[in-house]
Amino acid sequence: MASLARLSLNLATTRLRWGAIEAIEGAARAGLRAVAPWRDLVAKDGLEATAKAIRDNGLGVSSLCRGGMFAAADAAGRQAAIDDNRRAVDEATALGARSLVLVVGGLAQGSKDIAGARAMVADGLAAVLPHARAAAIPLAIEPLHPMYAADRACINTLAQALDLCDSLGEGVGVVVDVYHLWWDPDLEARIERAGKRRLLGFHVSDWLVPTTDLLLDRGMIGDGVIDIPRIRGWMEAAGYDGAIEIEIFSAENWWKRDPDEVVAICKERFETAV
Amino acid sequence: MASLARLSLNLATTRLRWGAIEAIEGAARAGLRAVAPWRDLVAKDGLEATAKAIRDNGLGVSSLCRGGMFAAADAAGRQAAIDDNRRAVDEATALGARSLVLVVGGLAQGSKDIAGARAMVADGLAAVLPHARAAAIPLAIEPLHPMYAADRACINTLAQALDLCDSLGEGVGVVVDVYHLWWDPDLEARIERAGKRRLLGFHVSDWLVPTTDLLLDRGMIGDGVIDIPRIRGWMEAAGYDGAIEIEIFSAENWWKRDPDEVVAICKERFETAV
Repeated sequence: MASLARLSLNLATTRLRWGAIEAIEGAARAGLRAVAPWRDLVAKDGLEATAKAIRDNGLGVSSLCRGGMFAAADAAGRQAAIDDNRRAVDEATALGARSLVLVVGGLAQGSKDIAGARAMVADGLAAVLPHARAAAIPLAIEPLHPMYAADRACINTLAQALDLCDSLGEGVGVVVDVYHLWWDPDLEARIERAGKRRLLGFHVSDWLVPTTDLLLDRGMIGDGVIDIPRIRGWMEAAGYDGAIEIEIFSAENWWKRDPDEVVAICKERFETAV
Repeated sequence: MASLARLSLNLATTRLRWGAIEAIEGAARAGLRAVAPWRDLVAKDGLEATAKAIRDNGLGVSSLCRGGMFAAADAAGRQAAIDDNRRAVDEATALGARSLVLVVGGLAQGSKDIAGARAMVADGLAAVLPHARAAAIPLAIEPLHPMYAADRACINTLAQALDLCDSLGEGVGVVVDVYHLWWDPDLEARIERAGKRRLLGFHVSDWLVPTTDLLLDRGMIGDGVIDIPRIRGWMEAAGYDGAIEIEIFSAENWWKRDPDEVVAICKERFETAV
């Protein structure tokens, strides 16, 4: 069983009903030790006010979600993405986040060139990395499920993400999200390849059968078919002992419920399903 | 440009409005040379009557869809699947099909053990293979998109399918369906690894952005983001010169239209989008 002290509430889980500060206070009320805020929620409540709420409530920040979205149809668009990622690094610093999660982006608008998009991602990461290194904010590449390859992230396996890490050097690692990677027949070997140094985050939710929406129908841990404890075991065998973020996009179910109840259920399930 | 003579109508494309024999006649009316029937449609119209319609209309049968679905919670269920696949081989023989397409099945009911499901698939294939070899019906493993890993097919990459082929020996190969595999960063190398002998089929449709349903929202070729000509080039570089099946699951769009019009559009698009 994973210690409850490792549970971090990814604020996507309560985002429909709780803003950043509300969620920080809710997490603290529930006795959690950490949260993972999203930039849009932070922007709404204000960066300084959010950072203060985190400090006042004595919480850690397991990560800031998210930078990325590097592919664009023209050079100005790509530069704007790089600039935005640099700002995201600064926000991560202000919040005391342990890493900046990157959802790298899909195809450029109007393009069918996925290899080209992947090259833009590599270039964008390389451009942001010096700033991230200087700030000591690790960049955490999150490989997304292949069903998001077109519109959210063209990095779709842990192997791909690790190849990128190999080419970029220090200051970059990966997030393992069971929802995105559970199907990969080589997942255990790839987590081992990543190793402690590059394993920057671990996200849990569950794959429902049936799944009714590609984006917003993730399940509460334990309600789906992912063998989460097995994957957690692989993470720990590779040396990962950091936060375990619960991140559930669920427009028709969990997002609609009382967020205090959702957090309570996250805590309960964490002890049986992770 | 691919020759129109290679276009085969996979009867999934017209399945809401056309039964097997209607679709065979419709394909012939449109001047197509081949079809790929589904077993449930064939069962409704009768195996002998369907085979006669194919002969009377002078069509080839690029494949029969589909066997598979090997994982089951108990031995009786697994044996039933094997028996059903043997019958599917016999039906492929009766129809003169060039291969039997296998959608191998997802997790066993109530299970979270995807490695176990994959082992059941390997065992099921090995049990069916002698009958298929005797009938000279190649078994064509179709790796399905990872979003189907839980409920339709736990073989999700071409590499996985080829590893299975390596372990099983002669009489088994793969189907490359662009919808399932377009995102794979190693697709070109994996098609090359498959080689002419094991490339038993090539299916085309398109990935729409956004995609509104995991199963029934595939796009007409040319309407999505898949670079189909590039993947066709990889297939041909590896020696594949067989049928190109158009297979579109589209409950809210193409399935509702006049099937003669759908087939006409398939023909037009085949010359520009494949």
